[in-house]
Amino acid sequence: MKLKLEGLFPPVTTPFNLNEDLDLENLEKNIREYNEFNLAGYVVLGSTGESVYLSDEESIKVVETFEKCVPETKKIIVGAGQESLRETINLIKKFADYRVDAFLIKTPHYYKSNMNSETLKNYFLKIAEISLKPIIIYHVPKFTGLQVESELIAELSEHPNIIGIKDSSGNLNFLSDIVRQVSEDFNVLIGAGSVFYSGLLLGAKGGVLAVANVAPQLCIDIFEFVKSGKLEEAKELQLKLLPLNNILVNKYGIPSIKYALDLVGFYGGPPRSPLLPVSNKEQEEIKEVLRNTGIL
Amino acid sequence: MKLKLEGLFPPVTTPFNLNEDLDLENLEKNIREYNEFNLAGYVVLGSTGESVYLSDEESIKVVETFEKCVPETKKIIVGAGQESLRETINLIKKFADYRVDAFLIKTPHYYKSNMNSETLKNYFLKIAEISLKPIIIYHVPKFTGLQVESELIAELSEHPNIIGIKDSSGNLNFLSDIVRQVSEDFNVLIGAGSVFYSGLLLGAKGGVLAVANVAPQLCIDIFEFVKSGKLEEAKELQLKLLPLNNILVNKYGIPSIKYALDLVGFYGGPPRSPLLPVSNKEQEEIKEVLRNTGIL
Amino acid sequence: MKLKLEGLFPPVTTPFNLNEDLDLENLEKNIREYNEFNLAGYVVLGSTGESVYLSDEESIKVVETFEKCVPETKKIIVGAGQESLRETINLIKKFADYRVDAFLIKTPHYYKSNMNSETLKNYFLKIAEISLKPIIIYHVPKFTGLQVESELIAELSEHPNIIGIKDSSGNLNFLSDIVRQVSEDFNVLIGAGSVFYSGLLLGAKGGVLAVANVAPQLCIDIFEFVKSGKLEEAKELQLKLLPLNNILVNKYGIPSIKYALDLVGFYGGPPRSPLLPVSNKEQEEIKEVLRNTGIL
Amino acid sequence: MKLKLEGLFPPVTTPFNLNEDLDLENLEKNIREYNEFNLAGYVVLGSTGESVYLSDEESIKVVETFEKCVPETKKIIVGAGQESLRETINLIKKFADYRVDAFLIKTPHYYKSNMNSETLKNYFLKIAEISLKPIIIYHVPKFTGLQVESELIAELSEHPNIIGIKDSSGNLNFLSDIVRQVSEDFNVLIGAGSVFYSGLLLGAKGGVLAVANVAPQLCIDIFEFVKSGKLEEAKELQLKLLPLNNILVNKYGIPSIKYALDLVGFYGGPPRSPLLPVSNKEQEEIKEVLRNTGIL
Repeated sequence: MKLKLEGLFPPVTTPFNLNEDLDLENLEKNIREYNEFNLAGYVVLGSTGESVYLSDEESIKVVETFEKCVPETKKIIVGAGQESLRETINLIKKFADYRVDAFLIKTPHYYKSNMNSETLKNYFLKIAEISLKPIIIYHVPKFTGLQVESELIAELSEHPNIIGIKDSSGNLNFLSDIVRQVSEDFNVLIGAGSVFYSGLLLGAKGGVLAVANVAPQLCIDIFEFVKSGKLEEAKELQLKLLPLNNILVNKYGIPSIKYALDLVGFYGGPPRSPLLPVSNKEQEEIKEVLRNTGIL
Repeated sequence: MKLKLEGLFPPVTTPFNLNEDLDLENLEKNIREYNEFNLAGYVVLGSTGESVYLSDEESIKVVETFEKCVPETKKIIVGAGQESLRETINLIKKFADYRVDAFLIKTPHYYKSNMNSETLKNYFLKIAEISLKPIIIYHVPKFTGLQVESELIAELSEHPNIIGIKDSSGNLNFLSDIVRQVSEDFNVLIGAGSVFYSGLLLGAKGGVLAVANVAPQLCIDIFEFVKSGKLEEAKELQLKLLPLNNILVNKYGIPSIKYALDLVGFYGGPPRSPLLPVSNKEQEEIKEVLRNTGIL
Repeated sequence: MKLKLEGLFPPVTTPFNLNEDLDLENLEKNIREYNEFNLAGYVVLGSTGESVYLSDEESIKVVETFEKCVPETKKIIVGAGQESLRETINLIKKFADYRVDAFLIKTPHYYKSNMNSETLKNYFLKIAEISLKPIIIYHVPKFTGLQVESELIAELSEHPNIIGIKDSSGNLNFLSDIVRQVSEDFNVLIGAGSVFYSGLLLGAKGGVLAVANVAPQLCIDIFEFVKSGKLEEAKELQLKLLPLNNILVNKYGIPSIKYALDLVGFYGGPPRSPLLPVSNKEQEEIKEVLRNTGIL
Repeated sequence: MKLKLEGLFPPVTTPFNLNEDLDLENLEKNIREYNEFNLAGYVVLGSTGESVYLSDEESIKVVETFEKCVPETKKIIVGAGQESLRETINLIKKFADYRVDAFLIKTPHYYKSNMNSETLKNYFLKIAEISLKPIIIYHVPKFTGLQVESELIAELSEHPNIIGIKDSSGNLNFLSDIVRQVSEDFNVLIGAGSVFYSGLLLGAKGGVLAVANVAPQLCIDIFEFVKSGKLEEAKELQLKLLPLNNILVNKYGIPSIKYALDLVGFYGGPPRSPLLPVSNKEQEEIKEVLRNTGIL
C-alpha cells in the first residue's frame, strides 16, 4: 500500500541573507509560521527552493531544519534529483539518516534528445530499487525543457516504491491521461497553481504550488471547497488566485515570490545569483496583484 | 443582451465523394442523423469541415444544406474567417441571405509575427462593426501557430456584436484567464475534447468538439452530467473520451474522423487532397480505440 | 535539362492605394525601376507580395502587369500554392495563358500534423504532373509553421518538372543537407537574407530575398562578389545587410518593407488589413537602419 | 590583447569503464592519440565530456590528466559553468593550480524565464572579474533551452577577460550578428559541426566540434582548406561531414560518439547513466554512416 499524499505541500523557498548565505534562522521562523496552517506537508529542495543553487552540505542543513521544526503530522518530501543516476543516488544516501517521507526526483534533462521513455524508465526504476524511501516523479517542462509521455508514468506507477508524480506542466490533457491509466493509490499532485482546481476535479490528490508560499490559506481553501463539493466557491478562489500565480510563478519567478514573502510577513530575502532581486517596477506590479487578491 | 450559446455544437465534417467533389446528399443524411441528438447546434465550415479546402461556391452550398436540414431549435454557426479583412467581409456578405446564427472567425495567422494584439483587435472590431450577425472568435493555435493574449479577448468581449470565443488551445490557464475577465453573457466554448469536462467546470458554456462528430452522445452525456452536478460520472466519461479524442483529433486528424464516421454509421468518405485517407495500420488503431470506448 | 535559375529574384511587394485596392500603375512603375538593376527575374505573388490577401482576379491582374513590363531576359516566377491540391491546380490553370517561367508552390500547412513527407510528396508530384510550367518548392517555416525533411526535397528533386526550392528557413544545416543530396541542375534558392552569402557559398544558385525590394543593389553586389571569389567584400556587405534584413524582414515584416520602399524612391503604400502600417516609433527605427546601411 | 584561439578544439569525451567509473588510463591514451593531429587544443569538461555527470573531484582528475598529456603548443579550455554564480566561482578556484588557458562558461539556464540579458550580463561580468584565466561564453540552446541575444554577447565582448564565445546554436543569423558587432580580437568559435565551413567563412576563428572526436582529420581539413582559400574542397568535405554529424551529434548524441570512437580506434566505452549505450539498430546506422564517410 502506497503512502497517501493528500492536500497541500508548499515547495518552500530557501532563505538567504544579504551575502546570499543560507539563513537557517529565518527558514526555521518561516516553517513555524507555515506549521500554523492546515498544510499536509512540505516540499523541501524543490525548484522554488533554489535547490540547483545549493551545495550538498547546504541541502543537508536545510533538511535538518525541516526535521527539527515540522511536526510528525506533516510530511516532508525532499527534492533529490540530479543529472546523473550516480549523483542522485549519492544524494539520497546522504539524506538516509534524516526524516524524509518521500523523495521528489525530477527528470534528468541536460541531454534532452537522449531522454526518451526507455532512458527515463531505466533511471527511475534504478532509483526506486535503491531508495529506502518512496519516490515521487517530478515533471516540470518549463525548467527542464522536457515533456514526458503519459505511458511512461503509467508504467512507472506500477513499481511499489514509486508513489506519485508532481506534474507542473499545467497540461490537463497530460494529467487526465495519467489519471486514466494509474491505480487509485498512485498520488497525482498538481504542480501548477493555474490548474489547481481543475486538477483536483480530475482526480489529483493535492498540490505542490509555489504560489502557496505566499498565499497558503487561499490554496487550502480551494482544496477544501473542492473536497466538500462547494465548486462555485472553489472556482471563484481559483480565478482569484490566477493573476497572483501568473505574476509570481510564470512571469517573475523566485525573486518575486521572495519579495512577496517579505511583504506578507514571512522572510523572503534575496535570491541567489545569477537570479537578481525584482526591480522597482516589478515591485509595484507585485504589490498591486497582492492588493487585488486581498492578501496585502 | 448577447445570444446565448449553451451545449454541444459539433464542427461537422464536409462529405466528399470518391472524386473529392462535394457530396451534399450525404451531408444532408448526416445532418438528419445528428438532429436526433440533443445538440445545441452545429459549427459549419470549421477546421474539421475542411473549410480551407472549399471554394466560396462550395461553402455556400454547404450552408444551404444546413439551412435546409436543421430545425430552428438548433443554432447554425458558420466559419467565415479568411486571411484578409477584405476576404472575410466578402464571405460574410455572401452568407447574408442564409440562416446564420453567428459567424466563427478565426485569427488570421499567415504573417504570424505581425499578428499582435493591436492588429487582431482592429481586425475583429472591424468585422464586428460590419457583420449583421454576431461574431465568435476562433482561437486554434495548433492550426494557426498563433497564441493570443487573454487581455485581447477580454477587450473584444466588450463589443456587443462579439459574443463568444471557441478556444481550441486546450490551455486551461488561458481559458481561466478569459473566464476571469469577461462578463457572464460572453460565451466561452471549449474547442478541445481533452479538456471539455474541465472547461465546463471553469465556466465554459459548451463545446465545439471535433470528436463529437463520432461520439455525439458521449459528449452530450459529459455536458449533462456536469450540468446536473454528477461530477464523478462526468469525469469517468471524460477519461473514457480522452484516448478517442487523442487518436482522432490530435494524432490523425480529419482523415481518421472520416474513417471513424464510416465505421459508426455516418457518412465519412475521403478527405480532400493533400489530406490522405488513413493507412491500414491507422485503421486498426482507430477500430481498437472505438472498441475500447464502447462505440464500435 | 532543368531551367537554370541563377542570381537575384526579388519577391516583389503588391502596391495598394489608400483604399487598399490594387494599384497596378504603381506596380508598373516599380517594375520598370527594378528592371534597371541586374536582376535575374522576379517572384510574383510570393509571401512578400501579400498573395494570401489577394483574390484570384487580382492575382491575375498582377501577373498581367509583370508580363507587360518585364523584358524576356528576366524570369517571372509566380506563386500559386493554395491549401488544397484542387485550388492550387485551378490557380495554375488560370495562369495558363500568361508568361510564367515557373510556379512557386508553398507547402500546404493548415493541418500541420497531417503534412508529413508522404502527404507532401503526393501533393507536389501531382502538381508537377499536371503543370505545364516547372515547379519550385517553397519552404517557409516562419509563415507555415512547418519544417520539412531534406529527404523529401531530395526525392522530389528527381522529378523533371520540379526544378528547385526556395528555402526561407534560414537553417543552413537543412540547406546543406539538400545541396548534398540533389543533382547539380536542381536550383536551390536562398529565401532568407540573413544567410544569403553563406547559402551561395554552399552551392545555392541565387536568392529570393524580401530585403532586395528595398536594397536590390546591395544584394546583387553580394551575389557578384561571391561569384567572382571576392569573399571578404561579399562578407562585409552581408554583415551590412544583416541589421536591415532583421528589422524589415524578421522584426516588422511587410508594413516596414513598404514604408522603406516609400523612403527610398519606390512606391510602398499601405499593406492590406489586417496588416497595419508601421507606427511612428517603428518608422524612426526603420529610418535609422536605412541610414546606417547607407541606403538613406 | 586577448588570447587568440584559432583552429580546432575537440570537446573530448570522458572515458568510463564498465562500472561507469572514470577511466583515466584510457583518457590518457586518447589524448596522446589526439596529440598527433594538428589540433589547436582541447575543450575539457564540455557537454560532450558529460561534465554535468561528474563530481568536482572527478573533474579535477580529468583536468590533471590533460595537463599531464597535452604539450604546451596546444591550449586547454576547461568547462566550469554551474547553475549558480557561487558554484561556478568555487569550481574555477578549484582549478586554480592547474594549467587552464581559458574557462568555458555556459549560460545558466534552469530558471529559463529569469535568464534575461541583464541577469546573464551580471553573471558573466562577475565571473570575468574574479577569474584569473580568460572566459569564453558557451551558448548551447539545444541543451540549455536558452537562446541569448547577440547584443548581450557584443556587450560582454568588451570586457578584457571575456575573450570569446562557443556558439553551438547552428544559427548563422545569430553568429553573423555577433561577428558584425564584436572586435577582431574576440574569438568566435563554432560549436555546431553542421555549419563549420559556413561559420569560418563568416569570420569564426575555429571550431569546438563534438564530431571532431571521431573525425579529427576531416574537420582539420575543412579548416585548412578554408584558410588556404580552397573553398570547393572545403565545401565538399563539409557536405561529407554533414550526415556523420547529424547522426552522431544531433540524432544519438554522446552514446553514439563513444560507440563510434570504439570503432575507429580510440577508447569510447559506455556513457554514464541515465545515458544508455546505443542499441543494436543504432549501431548499424552508425557503422553505415562511418563507412559512407570513408572513416570506417
